[in-house]
Parts: sequence; C-alpha cells; structure tokens
Amino acid sequence: PPAWGRAARQPPGLPHTPCRAFSNNKILVELDESSGVATMKFKSPPVNSLSLDFLTEFCISLEKLENNRACRGVILTSAVPRIFSSGLDITEMCGKTMEHYAEFWRAVQETWLRLYGSNMVTVAAINGSSPAGGCLLALSCDYRIMVEDPKFTIGLNEAQLGIVAPFWFKDTFVTVVGHRVAERALQLGSLHPAPEAQKIGLVDELVPEEKLQEKAVAVMAQWLALPDHARQLTKSMMRKAVLDRLVAHREEDVKNFISFISKESIQKSLRMYMEMLKKKK
Amino acid sequence: PPAWGRAARQPPGLPHTPCRAFSNNKILVELDESSGVATMKFKSPPVNSLSLDFLTEFCISLEKLENNRACRGVILTSAVPRIFSSGLDITEMCGKTMEHYAEFWRAVQETWLRLYGSNMVTVAAINGSSPAGGCLLALSCDYRIMVEDPKFTIGLNEAQLGIVAPFWFKDTFVTVVGHRVAERALQLGSLHPAPEAQKIGLVDELVPEEKLQEKAVAVMAQWLALPDHARQLTKSMMRKAVLDRLVAHREEDVKNFISFISKESIQKSLRMYMEMLKKKK
Amino acid sequence: PPAWGRAARQPPGLPHTPCRAFSNNKILVELDESSGVATMKFKSPPVNSLSLDFLTEFCISLEKLENNRACRGVILTSAVPRIFSSGLDITEMCGKTMEHYAEFWRAVQETWLRLYGSNMVTVAAINGSSPAGGCLLALSCDYRIMVEDPKFTIGLNEAQLGIVAPFWFKDTFVTVVGHRVAERALQLGSLHPAPEAQKIGLVDELVPEEKLQEKAVAVMAQWLALPDHARQLTKSMMRKAVLDRLVAHREEDVKNFISFISKESIQKSLRMYMEMLKKKK
Repeated sequence: PPAWGRAARQPPGLPHTPCRAFSNNKILVELDESSGVATMKFKSPPVNSLSLDFLTEFCISLEKLENNRACRGVILTSAVPRIFSSGLDITEMCGKTMEHYAEFWRAVQETWLRLYGSNMVTVAAINGSSPAGGCLLALSCDYRIMVEDPKFTIGLNEAQLGIVAPFWFKDTFVTVVGHRVAERALQLGSLHPAPEAQKIGLVDELVPEEKLQEKAVAVMAQWLALPDHARQLTKSMMRKAVLDRLVAHREEDVKNFISFISKESIQKSLRMYMEMLKKKK
Repeated sequence: PPAWGRAARQPPGLPHTPCRAFSNNKILVELDESSGVATMKFKSPPVNSLSLDFLTEFCISLEKLENNRACRGVILTSAVPRIFSSGLDITEMCGKTMEHYAEFWRAVQETWLRLYGSNMVTVAAINGSSPAGGCLLALSCDYRIMVEDPKFTIGLNEAQLGIVAPFWFKDTFVTVVGHRVAERALQLGSLHPAPEAQKIGLVDELVPEEKLQEKAVAVMAQWLALPDHARQLTKSMMRKAVLDRLVAHREEDVKNFISFISKESIQKSLRMYMEMLKKKK
Repeated sequence: PPAWGRAARQPPGLPHTPCRAFSNNKILVELDESSGVATMKFKSPPVNSLSLDFLTEFCISLEKLENNRACRGVILTSAVPRIFSSGLDITEMCGKTMEHYAEFWRAVQETWLRLYGSNMVTVAAINGSSPAGGCLLALSCDYRIMVEDPKFTIGLNEAQLGIVAPFWFKDTFVTVVGHRVAERALQLGSLHPAPEAQKIGLVDELVPEEKLQEKAVAVMAQWLALPDHARQLTKSMMRKAVLDRLVAHREEDVKNFISFISKESIQKSLRMYMEMLKKKK
C-alpha cells in the first residue's frame, strides 16, 4: 500500500510536530498483548462523525497496530451511546475550499484502503446506528456483530441526502449483500433496522447489548485460530480486485468528489440536511 | 444513449409519415400528471407477444415519457387476462429474411437498453405469466410485484425451446438472482410459479390480484420520495457495466442472432414449438 | 479445450504402453446406454485422495465419456464408505521434485478444466465428507446432492492446513455461494456439516443415504429432458469467463504453486498435518 499522504507533506528539516496528525482524543485504542487483540473505541461525541481529524487519527492508529507484531486483530466499537458512527462529517463538505475537499476525500479513501486491506482480523462490534460512512467502516471489516435493538439502523443512505455513494462504497456493499439488494438499497438510501440488516446479510449476527463485547472476543478467537499467513493471503485474494479499482482511479475519484460536492445544488442539499439535524436535537 | 435507429432512417425532406413507428394500439399509456406516474398497459391479445410492432411502439412510448418532465416513473402491466407478456414473437424469427431478423433484433436490443437504462423509476406489476422476453421486461425494471397465483409463472425458459438466452438477458438475470440460481434456471429453462419466483428473488413481492395496482402505486411513491438526481446517478452506477457490454458488442450480437436463428435446426425447433402452441389452444 | 498433456508425451513409434495413464483401478465407470447416463464411482481407499494416478485416470475416463455419443450425463459418487473424496493427495506435495509438483499441478488444473467445462450434465452424489479438492470436484458439477448426515462435512478448508486455495477454486466457489459466504468460509477454512452446506447453497439438496442414487438419477433425467445443444451453449455462457481465467494464466499458476509449495514453512505445515492425520487413525 502507498505511504500515507499526510506524513509525506511534513516539511523536511523541521521537527516532526505532533499536530492534528497525532491527536489521540477521538479514538481510544487498547491492546491486549496476551490475546493479540486491540480495540478501537470511537469516542467523538455527539455522533462519532468522521471528520478529517477523526479519519487522520483512525489511519495512524490502525497503521501502528498493523506494524505491531503483538497485534493480530482489531475490534471496532463505539464509546458513545446509541451510535456507532454517523458517517462522514458534513461540515467538512460544506462551504470549504477545493483544497480542503481534496484533503478530506483523500483521508476517506485512505481510511477505507487501510481498513478493507488490513492484514489483521477486523471485527465490527456495532453498538448503535451506523449510516453512510459509518456503515462503510463496518462493511470493511471481516465480520459484523450488531446489537439486536431494532432502533439501531445501518445502511448506505447517501441518496436520502441527495448525494451518491462513491463506486468503492458500492463495490464493498455489493461484495457483502449481492448486486440486487445493493441496487435497491442504494437507490432508496435505505437504513435497515438491525434485524433486517441481518436478514439481508449486511451484518452477520445480532446479540443483546450486554453480550456484544464477549461475542466479539469469541469471534475474534475463532478467526485467530487460523494461521495468519494463509488467512492473510486468502483475504487479499478476495479483496484485491475491489481495492485495485480505487487505487487505479484514486485521483480521478478525488476530482469527481470535488466537482460533485462543490455544485451549488449539492451544497444547498447538504445545508438543508444540516439544518434538519440541528432542529432534530 | 444512442438515437433510436428507426427514426434516423426516415428519408430527409419527406413529411414524417406515421407508419408502423407510430402505431399506438398495442400499449395503452396513461400519465397521472399529479403524481408524475405513467402506466404502460400491454393490450396486444392473445398473449402480448413482443412483435416488431409492439417493440417499436414500446420504445417510442417510453422515449416520450422519458423526455416528459412531468413523468418520473412508469408502471408496466398487462390489460390481457392471465398473461403479462409471452416474450419475443416467434413468428418474427421464423421463415423471414436476414434483414427482417436484423431489424427485429435491433428493436429487442433497443427495448432493453431503454428500459434497463431508464432514468425513470420503473415498476413491473406482473398480473400473469411472463416467460422469456416477458421476463426480461420485468427483470429490467427497478422493482417487481407479482400476483400471488401459483398458476402464473415467470422465467427465462429459452432452453426449453432449443434456443439460448442472449448474454445480456443472462447478465440482467444474474444481477437479480445471483450466478448460481441463474446458471441452474437458464440450463433447465425454468418457469417459476409466483411463490418460487419470490423465494429466489426473481420478483420482490407477491400480492393478491385485486391489490396489485394499489401496491404498485405505493411502491412507486416510496421510490419517488428520493431526489431524482441522486437516485438516477445511483441507478446508472449499478447498471452501467451491464449496459456497456451490449453497447460495445451490439452489431456482433445482431450477427450472432441472425446466424443462430437462421440455422435449419433452430428454424425446425421453432416451427415445432409454434405447432405445439397452436394445438394447446 | 487443449489436448491432455500426458498423452502427448508418449514417445512416437513405440507401442502405446498402458502404464499409469491407463490405470483403471481407482475409478469404476459404468455407462447405462439406455439412459445415456454414466456413473464414476471413486474406489481409492482409504479416502479417495486425489493422487496423480487418480487424477490421470479421472481425466481419461471423463474424456472417453465426453467423446462417447451414447453418453449425455455423468454422476460422480464414492464407493468408499463415509468419504466422497479427501481432496488433493498431500504426499504428492511433500518432499517431491519441482518436476513432480509441476506435473501434479497440471493434472489438478486439467481435471477442473475438463469437469467444470464438460458438455455433459454432471451431478455430484456426495455420500460422505468432501474437503478441499473433494469439494472442488462437487462444486464443478451442475448439481450437488448430499447425504443428510451432519457428520459428513464439505468445504474448501485449505486455510486450516496453512495453505491457500488457488484463485480458480475461489472463483468456482464464489459462483456457487456468492462473494460474502466465500470470503468468510475461505478465511476460516470452514468445513460445513451437510445441513449447513445446503443452507449456504454449497449443495443443492439433502437426502437420506438410501435415496441418494435414486435422487441422482431423477435429477439427471430432469436435466437431460432439455435439448443438449441449447443446454450446452447456456452452460458454456455461464462458465466461460471463469474457465478462461485459468486458461489464460495456466503456466503462471503452475509456477505460483511450485514456488509456494516448495517453501520450507509450507512443507513443514504439510508434514505436521500428515502426522496429525496418521495419529488420528
């Protein structure tokens, strides 16, 4: 995988300043050295939205674990009640400069490339709602366990906001639920209550909230029982084609995002959506 | 999408003659301007077979709706009892000239390209049996509702007639039911009773006949609740690869069809099949 | 399909010696001329492992049937109690020369190319466990019937042995069970008890052991009711892309196999696995 863009832009000769790139207040990372399993707990209230800061911290944390030989698996979960992650932070896409849109979108790409392509076993322990980009994080893991509460929903609901899920969100979704379910859900921008999400294969298993952590650990142990090397090569064989499609079209995808998001009609849709969210509170 | 072939062949300078291309007695089109929903009702007894006339009228009607800003969705249904559409008209493929086969096949292609690629929301309200090309019409819509009567069957049964479904019939089918179900059903030329069709995902929903219209309208309203632009881009993202495959191989596909259909063994199969149909009556 | 390699190496001018290539003691082939259905019964105790000899005999037998106009379908089953086939013979992959590995792997490829691409109707009557290469044989047929006993398991469990299923094993698996089920099962090296195998679509039907033969014959009759020509063209349309991928990368795949299997770490894994199997007895 290509070196992560932000680090490369560090001016040479200057001391490595621990600015945003080293923030560590949005995700709590704990590594259990005895089992080799880390937990990344999202703690960015109110809704764990995927801001540039959040994504930056996510990528750095994941890379550290990836390079740590003591770590073989990661559980993603939330420290915020009732929400896993609300998806991409709309404020990063509204009224900003082209440069900002580009930087933000590269961070979104990087997050997915690192997570979907991770050599570690990745388990999503989904303890709350998980729309749009939050759903993508879950879809990119090897296994998804969700709290059985039907008030918690998950899905790629971009169309509801008047925007379109990028092709690699779609590709990831199709590999999990199949073409037909994806076509319908993406066009309707469906948010699936947990029981429906399991029925269509979007999540693998439902558990009561108090059993979630225990279940994630048990599933992780099952996956870690396999020899790492064979499992990693197998995972790579399954995911390479989808990863390669974005790698081959990465800059084009950035340009498409900028040109789409900077349209006045889209900006207006997003502003209206944010107003609606504010009134909801 | 490319301009529709027939219109282009209109001699320049001559008055636009309302010949076959403007027949409007095989499909009843009604547009409810308040909801933006049109209904195309097939009324070509005895079995709504897809003759060159029918397909021509279908394409022209669909294009008119597509270009009508007051129209956002189309419901396809039948005015003939117990049959949605019996599929391609075999008389068009039997004992005709090469030119006729080519013209007919281009109309079949055009029908699918327009319907599968339509920007409108398309709902099939399947109120009768729907073999072969009739099934393709339904498969090309965004949503399929079928009357629950198990006497009504649907499927790509070409193999039963000794012929082979074209690759783009197959591609469309695979995106709906998946590779395994398609492989088995295509080889067996299966016609699925409505309940089985729903079980394998070939239709989305079953309803009693008297509820069909009401259900189609309700489903349409759900799909039209989404912003058109985002929904259309999403639909196009999902269907582009399959559409492009035929666009790239269109003339080759015409040649293949002609060379296949004009084989004496195939002509004999089709004649036998027609004899059988006549005796059935 | 390319001519089968081994025969070509027969020295010219010499009488055609019935050496290994003509062994016929590992598979019992019976052809019922009245129905046009052959049965290939694996009788290579203790576990019908796919040795070079077995694969050679399999290819030759299949080719003979393929070229026999009296034969339209083949049922694969086992004459050894409680096992369909244990998969590739590990002794062929352990402590042998590079030449041997290459010869063995070409035979594995050839077996799959012939079976997956067969013009005949192929039905697997799975009367016992069927891991790894045994599962591949079943996956390559048109239809899979398994004895309902949950003690019998089936799956591509290569990852459990520390090795990786080749891409064309994976492709075949994905066309049958879909991407998501395949991704999980391949990474975990899952062996599915018969009822679970049916639930995920890995086998089509379960029957009591005493009904297996009767059921296979009935299914075969259903498939043979279709005209051969249309059915064969349809099968080829469905399978060509997957077949072509191996045909295009065949020598590369041989090299990959040799370089992987001759690694000391892999050899060690396989030796340990064989030790474990011996102790089990």
